[in-house]
Amino acid sequence: MISENQYFDGNVKSLGYETAEGKSTVGIINPGEYEFGTAQKEIMNVIEGELSALIPESAEWKIFPAGTCFEVSANSSFKVKTEVQTVYLCQYR
Amino acid sequence: MISENQYFDGNVKSLGYETAEGKSTVGIINPGEYEFGTAQKEIMNVIEGELSALIPESAEWKIFPAGTCFEVSANSSFKVKTEVQTVYLCQYR
Repeated sequence: MISENQYFDGNVKSLGYETAEGKSTVGIINPGEYEFGTAQKEIMNVIEGELSALIPESAEWKIFPAGTCFEVSANSSFKVKTEVQTVYLCQYR
Repeated sequence: MISENQYFDGNVKSLGYETAEGKSTVGIINPGEYEFGTAQKEIMNVIEGELSALIPESAEWKIFPAGTCFEVSANSSFKVKTEVQTVYLCQYR
């Protein structure tokens, strides 16, 4: 089963699946700024492109290039922005 | 623009986009065996899970775990098989 999701008028699209360790989604974020809420802890891995993220524990935006990741705790929210189409893998763990 | 694609009765789904270096797709492959044709050179990066691949230059199947990649030349075809849902990033370069 591969689920299909889209958010923000199709500017963020993702495909979801289950691994032995938990649910994951892989997706693409168009240029822009977006805010996401979390129900579980999320590990956001930047695969291609680059994201700036504002996470609850941080007072300022940080840049995450391809090959890096950041964590967001459950029941919170975070903002991302990007100037280029960016691929991410989000692991819900 | 994020394109949506699916193949093999929805057992392979991908999202496509353009980077400065060329087109890429990110997708998920359900357990099974599949054959793909290539119009351009493709660089297949395994992001999560594991793929076995049979590429034209090789006489036997090789295993590509997460974090590895393989290349397939233009105008050829290759087979992949997997026992777990696997995430890939395919770069057309």
